[in-house]
Amino acid sequence: MNERERARRPGGRSARVGAQVHQAVTDLISERGHGNFTVGEVAARAGVADSSIYRRWGSLEALLTDVTLARLNARSPMPDTGSLAGDLRTYAAQVAREITGPDGLAVVRLAVALSSNGPEGLQAAEALRAERTRQLQAMLDRARERGECALDASDVLDHIMAPMYIRVLFGMVPLAPDWVDGLVDRLL
Amino acid sequence: MNERERARRPGGRSARVGAQVHQAVTDLISERGHGNFTVGEVAARAGVADSSIYRRWGSLEALLTDVTLARLNARSPMPDTGSLAGDLRTYAAQVAREITGPDGLAVVRLAVALSSNGPEGLQAAEALRAERTRQLQAMLDRARERGECALDASDVLDHIMAPMYIRVLFGMVPLAPDWVDGLVDRLL
Repeated sequence: MNERERARRPGGRSARVGAQVHQAVTDLISERGHGNFTVGEVAARAGVADSSIYRRWGSLEALLTDVTLARLNARSPMPDTGSLAGDLRTYAAQVAREITGPDGLAVVRLAVALSSNGPEGLQAAEALRAERTRQLQAMLDRARERGECALDASDVLDHIMAPMYIRVLFGMVPLAPDWVDGLVDRLL
Repeated sequence: MNERERARRPGGRSARVGAQVHQAVTDLISERGHGNFTVGEVAARAGVADSSIYRRWGSLEALLTDVTLARLNARSPMPDTGSLAGDLRTYAAQVAREITGPDGLAVVRLAVALSSNGPEGLQAAEALRAERTRQLQAMLDRARERGECALDASDVLDHIMAPMYIRVLFGMVPLAPDWVDGLVDRLL
């Protein structure tokens, strides 16, 4: 997004500051990696005061989580295809594409950075996980209401997301589409 | 290990240098985290020349992998209980204990550090994975030879190790023993 697009963004000053800060964080992560910049550096890059960031997000950890969640929601929205198999296949394929892409392990790297960062980090990681779990459970609840099989979000985490994340972490890529579909089929 | 124990260690100079370098790496990881020291710093701490490290290990990445593998083999050796269920339960419980312990995520942190560290890092991560997979497959092959069910190391990675690692990464700890046993039972 360039300066002009940012200025045109609807929602007034608060939305504009939010977008500038998100962009600054995204840039700093890609330049330096997680854990290698401060709130002051984000503020300077975004052209806002440190205090604006602390007032709105409370901590660097909470800000990082917010940026990651926004990115996940934009790139891997929960699908609604009308069937559980369709939803899970679509979701699994999206996640596979995302985590094997150029900034692939952003979420995993963030989780690692947060989990080594004391109580605020753990709390932020927990908030991120809780929000995505809520979205995933809503998708699974729609299936249950249609009379399809009843799954918990934790089953999806353990047997679809976890194997994909770990293979990417260990450099076992690419993830073959047949193998990804197989994870879904086995769970169903 | 103190200096005197190190000096008494059998195997002569090469084994002594190996132990000193391993200890230096372990200390530096716990003080600074992965990715925050150089071969020169390891050499200085171990009291050896940089060139000795390059000659023996080739790169910092290969050295980190060697240290992690030695640690894994010491703390989570592959069990041989006489039954596949026993072996898998024992192994899963060991891994659960290890990754929720004080230096819990050492392997995952190393994998993340290596995977963001270019071709040498990826190659080192692959070597680590290959060695542990070979050990795991040997355990599974013994079960197959006894006429028990035939599993691949990749099944164990995907459905036992991966869910545990991801839960620890996301701060969803402790890992309940019943849940860990459940992963094994489901796979069998």
